[in-house]
Amino acid sequence: MTDLGRPTTACVSHRCLAEEIIDRKLYSAPQTTECLINVNLTSILYQTLSVDTKAMQFSSQIKIHMEWTDPDLAWSGPQYNFTEIVLPYDRIWTPELTVVNAVKMNVKPVSNDILVQSDGTVSYTILMYTTVVCGINLFTYPFVHGSCPVAINGWNQSSCGLNLTYGSVSSVGDSRGEWKTLSVELSRNERTNNRNFLLVNMSINPFNAMVTLVLPSALIMVADLVSFALPLDGGKRSSFKITLVLSFTMFLLILTNNLPDTGACSPLLQYHFCFCLLVLVLSMLLSMVFTKLAADGSLKPFKLQKLQTTGRFKSQTDDSVNNAVSKYIGFTMERDSLEKIVNYVENLDKKEKTTKKKQIFADNLDKRCFWVYLSIDIIYSLCVLSVTRTDFCKFNNLDF
Amino acid sequence: MTDLGRPTTACVSHRCLAEEIIDRKLYSAPQTTECLINVNLTSILYQTLSVDTKAMQFSSQIKIHMEWTDPDLAWSGPQYNFTEIVLPYDRIWTPELTVVNAVKMNVKPVSNDILVQSDGTVSYTILMYTTVVCGINLFTYPFVHGSCPVAINGWNQSSCGLNLTYGSVSSVGDSRGEWKTLSVELSRNERTNNRNFLLVNMSINPFNAMVTLVLPSALIMVADLVSFALPLDGGKRSSFKITLVLSFTMFLLILTNNLPDTGACSPLLQYHFCFCLLVLVLSMLLSMVFTKLAADGSLKPFKLQKLQTTGRFKSQTDDSVNNAVSKYIGFTMERDSLEKIVNYVENLDKKEKTTKKKQIFADNLDKRCFWVYLSIDIIYSLCVLSVTRTDFCKFNNLDF
Amino acid sequence: MTDLGRPTTACVSHRCLAEEIIDRKLYSAPQTTECLINVNLTSILYQTLSVDTKAMQFSSQIKIHMEWTDPDLAWSGPQYNFTEIVLPYDRIWTPELTVVNAVKMNVKPVSNDILVQSDGTVSYTILMYTTVVCGINLFTYPFVHGSCPVAINGWNQSSCGLNLTYGSVSSVGDSRGEWKTLSVELSRNERTNNRNFLLVNMSINPFNAMVTLVLPSALIMVADLVSFALPLDGGKRSSFKITLVLSFTMFLLILTNNLPDTGACSPLLQYHFCFCLLVLVLSMLLSMVFTKLAADGSLKPFKLQKLQTTGRFKSQTDDSVNNAVSKYIGFTMERDSLEKIVNYVENLDKKEKTTKKKQIFADNLDKRCFWVYLSIDIIYSLCVLSVTRTDFCKFNNLDF
Amino acid sequence: MTDLGRPTTACVSHRCLAEEIIDRKLYSAPQTTECLINVNLTSILYQTLSVDTKAMQFSSQIKIHMEWTDPDLAWSGPQYNFTEIVLPYDRIWTPELTVVNAVKMNVKPVSNDILVQSDGTVSYTILMYTTVVCGINLFTYPFVHGSCPVAINGWNQSSCGLNLTYGSVSSVGDSRGEWKTLSVELSRNERTNNRNFLLVNMSINPFNAMVTLVLPSALIMVADLVSFALPLDGGKRSSFKITLVLSFTMFLLILTNNLPDTGACSPLLQYHFCFCLLVLVLSMLLSMVFTKLAADGSLKPFKLQKLQTTGRFKSQTDDSVNNAVSKYIGFTMERDSLEKIVNYVENLDKKEKTTKKKQIFADNLDKRCFWVYLSIDIIYSLCVLSVTRTDFCKFNNLDF
Amino acid sequence: MTDLGRPTTACVSHRCLAEEIIDRKLYSAPQTTECLINVNLTSILYQTLSVDTKAMQFSSQIKIHMEWTDPDLAWSGPQYNFTEIVLPYDRIWTPELTVVNAVKMNVKPVSNDILVQSDGTVSYTILMYTTVVCGINLFTYPFVHGSCPVAINGWNQSSCGLNLTYGSVSSVGDSRGEWKTLSVELSRNERTNNRNFLLVNMSINPFNAMVTLVLPSALIMVADLVSFALPLDGGKRSSFKITLVLSFTMFLLILTNNLPDTGACSPLLQYHFCFCLLVLVLSMLLSMVFTKLAADGSLKPFKLQKLQTTGRFKSQTDDSVNNAVSKYIGFTMERDSLEKIVNYVENLDKKEKTTKKKQIFADNLDKRCFWVYLSIDIIYSLCVLSVTRTDFCKFNNLDF
Repeated sequence: MTDLGRPTTACVSHRCLAEEIIDRKLYSAPQTTECLINVNLTSILYQTLSVDTKAMQFSSQIKIHMEWTDPDLAWSGPQYNFTEIVLPYDRIWTPELTVVNAVKMNVKPVSNDILVQSDGTVSYTILMYTTVVCGINLFTYPFVHGSCPVAINGWNQSSCGLNLTYGSVSSVGDSRGEWKTLSVELSRNERTNNRNFLLVNMSINPFNAMVTLVLPSALIMVADLVSFALPLDGGKRSSFKITLVLSFTMFLLILTNNLPDTGACSPLLQYHFCFCLLVLVLSMLLSMVFTKLAADGSLKPFKLQKLQTTGRFKSQTDDSVNNAVSKYIGFTMERDSLEKIVNYVENLDKKEKTTKKKQIFADNLDKRCFWVYLSIDIIYSLCVLSVTRTDFCKFNNLDF
Repeated sequence: MTDLGRPTTACVSHRCLAEEIIDRKLYSAPQTTECLINVNLTSILYQTLSVDTKAMQFSSQIKIHMEWTDPDLAWSGPQYNFTEIVLPYDRIWTPELTVVNAVKMNVKPVSNDILVQSDGTVSYTILMYTTVVCGINLFTYPFVHGSCPVAINGWNQSSCGLNLTYGSVSSVGDSRGEWKTLSVELSRNERTNNRNFLLVNMSINPFNAMVTLVLPSALIMVADLVSFALPLDGGKRSSFKITLVLSFTMFLLILTNNLPDTGACSPLLQYHFCFCLLVLVLSMLLSMVFTKLAADGSLKPFKLQKLQTTGRFKSQTDDSVNNAVSKYIGFTMERDSLEKIVNYVENLDKKEKTTKKKQIFADNLDKRCFWVYLSIDIIYSLCVLSVTRTDFCKFNNLDF
Repeated sequence: MTDLGRPTTACVSHRCLAEEIIDRKLYSAPQTTECLINVNLTSILYQTLSVDTKAMQFSSQIKIHMEWTDPDLAWSGPQYNFTEIVLPYDRIWTPELTVVNAVKMNVKPVSNDILVQSDGTVSYTILMYTTVVCGINLFTYPFVHGSCPVAINGWNQSSCGLNLTYGSVSSVGDSRGEWKTLSVELSRNERTNNRNFLLVNMSINPFNAMVTLVLPSALIMVADLVSFALPLDGGKRSSFKITLVLSFTMFLLILTNNLPDTGACSPLLQYHFCFCLLVLVLSMLLSMVFTKLAADGSLKPFKLQKLQTTGRFKSQTDDSVNNAVSKYIGFTMERDSLEKIVNYVENLDKKEKTTKKKQIFADNLDKRCFWVYLSIDIIYSLCVLSVTRTDFCKFNNLDF
Repeated sequence: MTDLGRPTTACVSHRCLAEEIIDRKLYSAPQTTECLINVNLTSILYQTLSVDTKAMQFSSQIKIHMEWTDPDLAWSGPQYNFTEIVLPYDRIWTPELTVVNAVKMNVKPVSNDILVQSDGTVSYTILMYTTVVCGINLFTYPFVHGSCPVAINGWNQSSCGLNLTYGSVSSVGDSRGEWKTLSVELSRNERTNNRNFLLVNMSINPFNAMVTLVLPSALIMVADLVSFALPLDGGKRSSFKITLVLSFTMFLLILTNNLPDTGACSPLLQYHFCFCLLVLVLSMLLSMVFTKLAADGSLKPFKLQKLQTTGRFKSQTDDSVNNAVSKYIGFTMERDSLEKIVNYVENLDKKEKTTKKKQIFADNLDKRCFWVYLSIDIIYSLCVLSVTRTDFCKFNNLDF
Repeated sequence: MTDLGRPTTACVSHRCLAEEIIDRKLYSAPQTTECLINVNLTSILYQTLSVDTKAMQFSSQIKIHMEWTDPDLAWSGPQYNFTEIVLPYDRIWTPELTVVNAVKMNVKPVSNDILVQSDGTVSYTILMYTTVVCGINLFTYPFVHGSCPVAINGWNQSSCGLNLTYGSVSSVGDSRGEWKTLSVELSRNERTNNRNFLLVNMSINPFNAMVTLVLPSALIMVADLVSFALPLDGGKRSSFKITLVLSFTMFLLILTNNLPDTGACSPLLQYHFCFCLLVLVLSMLLSMVFTKLAADGSLKPFKLQKLQTTGRFKSQTDDSVNNAVSKYIGFTMERDSLEKIVNYVENLDKKEKTTKKKQIFADNLDKRCFWVYLSIDIIYSLCVLSVTRTDFCKFNNLDF
């Protein structure tokens, strides 16, 4: 230590000593013979700032108070009647912490002035703004629990580097936004390199997703089921169902815009929405087909309809025969007129019955379809429930 | 003070003195023996720049004029016929203020040149751009009053640090945007550590939220109530109600996109909207079921309809018997025709009456439903009003 | 001046002199005995970059060419055969201008090299990017004229500071975007402190707002008025009107998203839109009620309908009596059948007349309602026109 | 040159020479006696990064390779067996280029190390990120060709400054995004001050605008024209047309959100959309009026309808007279019943004919209206086509 | 090396040596006689951060560990019992890597302290944030595979420069977001200048695009096809189809907002959507025309309808003749009434038959149209499939 040229002039005030230490230009690290610098992170205060669920990026502010000993900053002597001075942080060496798995990082000191004690112990507080990407299993979205590592480490190459000791770890501001920070704990990655890291346990607040995605989509599905009560004729049910389909599409769009594509482990909700959309469209198409069936009695779209003149003509020829007959009798004129009216009325009645027959046929098909539809819905719900019980998606966030 | 090497050359101009002071390189703090520096914040001017209600982040610009005494910057002597000089701010020590509960902070001096008086008193003005997160009870949104602390403090470790004295506190630009700054006052956190902080009292301007959220949703609810006046047949009421439901969903989306998830203290408006949505959907489903009821007379969806041929056949056999009878009489031909017409007409009449019966049954159910619906609405309104009177949500923003 | 240590070596080239001046490290201001520095802003070129109408923030780029005399940069002597040299801007003192009422400000020199003349006159050009908040009366939006001060001032404390002289002021790029810069002029705030500032006169280009807000909303109101021509039956008019109401809500949302909440001086357009929305909803509700009236003849929702069997039963008993009578007469069988048909036809006719009566009653009410509606629209339009003539909203932007 | 204190120590390695040059602290410009520095921009590579059509801001990256001679960086002597060394760019003077008409500008060197040759020639490459605002005539949007100047100039005051020589100019990455960079050429502003500038020729890729704005709006207009084929009764055509109108409004909103307000030279498309909207609304209103006409036969909204009881009563009195007559005859009872039925049937027939008459009247008006509408469309199309041929909008972007 | 003034004082601690090296101010590059510096990029870790598909900009974080030898940093001697020291990175020369084809680039060291070995070998790790634009063939969107070069090169002018040796190349975080990083490999551009670059192979995750664009649009097309089952009368099919058309327009808007305009190689999906839109509109227009046809029997819009009074008058004159005849006979009064009713009924029957005829005519046309439509759809699908097989779009990203 003598070779750094400790000044010999007598310096009795705080500032004089500070200026004198600054003049030493101690910009390099206080390396021991083992090329290690011990830094004690006495307190770590974690605060989640924002979460981008789409990109799975977690931004946080970490306030770290640290202490280390720089022997070249120590002073002693009877002329100094104080044990602490403050120095500007950019005039001495300070350890630089990094977050290994960060995609964005920014560090700034809480204060320009840092406290140095007479034995060379330096107290320093930094604010670290960091963004890490980590994979959280969103399969059961919006009911998600996961943890995300934030690997605070100094530079650490071969033998030289910072030797970090961790103190208390806590978190604040944990309950706002879609993601809730449950706890922050110090963890150790035993598999790879014994590195310590903060493990941030988070969960999604399901309220908003339930209210804006699950609730409306469930209501749409129920409305679709109950809309079997609407009449088939005139396409009224179809117009109702197309409205449902388009609204559902909107919710599907909102969902896919908010959630990430994570390949095999995509949120079940996405597949569920696709299934629902298909079921909705199918039920809409069926309702259109049944409308046709109720109107025409058949679906054959190739056969061009012909004017069903035969039956009519027959009744007309009957009329004409009757007329011919009635002409030479003379008295039957009145009966003849009545016959015509009866013919018309019977035709009406026959047509009505045919229509009724077609409608009942379509209605019965429709009812069977309703039961099939309901069964599919129930079976599907049971399947989905059982799938959510399994836990086949695992992410490894510790390979950094 | 003599040990900082005060120059002995005679310096008579402003600039010469300034350059001479700069040469002293006084970058460390003017620490007294108590390791404290007294800084007087003579005026604080607070201005809210923007508020992110979703993330509960309040951004503001704070203009702080401060004064402190740096004895090493003082000068005296008969050769100096002036009492003030200006110095570049980055060549001497300046105190650094921090906002303890900020998530973003940026400080810049108003001017590069700062005024120093001959007794070492330095006048310095800074602009502090800061963003704090604070919990404001949004339970009664959009009628919200709350206060948010902005804890301006210098670094303050153990014994050393800045000793701040506060002067006047005022605010400008208070009325634009969704949030209105009512007042800014100096406050003292007596529970924890006697730290001073600015307490910014804010309220939400309810006009926009009333116009874009409450008004349209109230109108939708009224429209839903009045839409009981629409006829049940043909699903017309259902199409009207599905339009209302989907519009309401849109307003629910807008609401949840604008307001934060704050767990138990979520805005009442959100729960209210969910309730309204459920009521809307229920009334839509009922209207569909009543449509079915008015058309079919029953809801049994299992029973497949059969062609009601029996009654008809009977009337036809009556006809045929009549015909058979009439054949051997001869005179009854005309009467026979008339009988057929009468049969048809009576059938029509019977059918009409059945239809009427079903409709009246459904209508009566519908009317009862309307009254139940109206009662629920009134009871619910009273409940909501009484809940808003209670005050069970409290946030503590002072734990920093 | 001699005490700054002017070098004695002979320096004959531009660069040698420049390097020699740089070596003097003249970072402090060239203060005169009065502690004032005269700076001449020879030209100011103002350009509005963007305007955020919602937050009332006006961003601009201001190009300022300034000149001042720094006696310590002067040179003379026969060995110098040149009158100008260029120096790097960051090696000498330059005045720093600030905008007092800015919420964001950034200054950068146009060039790193600045021109110094042999008498110490320095020519310097800066680009100032500044954002000011100012209150412009949007009551008559989108027909708005207003002015916004940009207070360029040097630091100016007690006695020391910059003494600014203003030269020409002009503006470029004035016609793009929603806001149009009409003119920029130098003004003096005589009420408070005689400070000079730039007064930027702006107006809103009403075309876009007219086309996207006023035109569609006016068309919706006209469509609502004309939609009284649609038939009442079956809720067709109601479905048409709910479409109008929802579209109008969309325009109301767009409006409130684009315009600021400025308390009492909110744009009239906002209140107008609220009024229109209420009128639209009222007319929709009335059309639903009239639909009910046209169908049922009354609105009493408490009275449950009963099957009107009495009248019918009577006619049926008439029939049965007739039948009974006809049985023992024998001849009246044919007449009997005819009676039945006549009964049916008369019933039809009676029903039709009742329906017609109800419809005409509802139609007449509807027509009266149309006239009331039209009168309200006309009276309201006159009121709005007279209100826009008044000028009761004043903003004071000069308190900085 | 000797007065800059060229070292006398023998320096034989690259680095020794480099360090020795750095020690000279040559931060000022290598000014010749004419106070001019010749800089040769050997190659300029232009790349458009993004274009904001709404604000008419063009952002680009310009890679400029330049060379100049700084005699004070030259070296010679037998001890140097190399002709090139590299120096850190921030330790010597480098010319600073500015873009005069830029609203945002950022320059950074491609590399920290720059090459210096033994005769003092310096090779330097910079990346210039610049945003210029320039007026391009959007009258014929989306078929737009225009050019935008980027005025690269050094600082250039009175006599001193950079003297730029331009070499090759090229552009890359020209085909992506809405705007396509056609070519970049060196141009000279002869009218004002003979300044050179880059002229960037650009055109809009019309595909997206055609597909998202022109195609849908044209289809809506065609659908409106063909929708005259829909039946008038029951407001079906009106509901169809209101859907068209609201969709069109959406496209109008998209258009005005994407395009700037440029006063008199607004895109023709905007006026075209307004015209189309008006025509759509007019045709909707007419279809509503015709619906009324087809139903009521007249439009008089003042005249309250009265129950047309007179005609009916008469027929009923006829009936009663007949009844009265038939009573004392006795035989006419049957004929009497028949009379009643005939009366009912004739009433039906009469009513039908009146309805038919009204409908044909409305239909004929509707057909005439269709032809007027079609004619207006054709005449309007011809007008628009002829207007696009004219070229009355000129922007001058060269006043900087 | 001796000419850099290696100190002679005995320095035995790590820090003393470090401070002594810093004092040498070695800011220039350690150039060999060939003016080349060998830098070994021992490991490159590539991570895609975000992709802007619209602008085709790929942002990534590249962590590069590099080693080089700076002989002037070496030390030796018996007094040093250590082989490694750490130095602050900004006090010595470090090589600067650039990405030649980047449009944005930012480099920061992982740690401020870097490790130097006693033979002068420096270990240094940087994080490079870079954004490159590269053309990827989106013709088969959303099934896209492509590769994008990231050309990491030091400055490299004529003879002097960095000589890079590449080590291992790997990538992390490859599966989130729309784009998936498949692999990163080192490649060499043999055509132009033998420069090495990283070739990043990427593919689009088609799930989201399939679910939000292809699936809904396919469902809309199917719904349009099946909607031929809806009845023509009353414009019900048209209202259904206009809903489909407008929804499709929305998807077209979403598509064009997300994908870039790349001229001839625009995504096939865009043309496909345009085609679908045209087909949808055509089928809607046809359904409107067929509605007219089914109602009127012809399309002639010029011919104004006349009241078809002739046929009726004839029947009436028949009636009147009959009446006239019946008057002088007396007995025929009853028959006369019957005749009237028969006439009415026959008229009804005739009208019905005409209507039926028209409807069958329109229905048959409609069916033919359905088959044409289906054929077009099938043929078109086959064409699209065959086009996707071809591979005519090639981008060259290597011209930098």
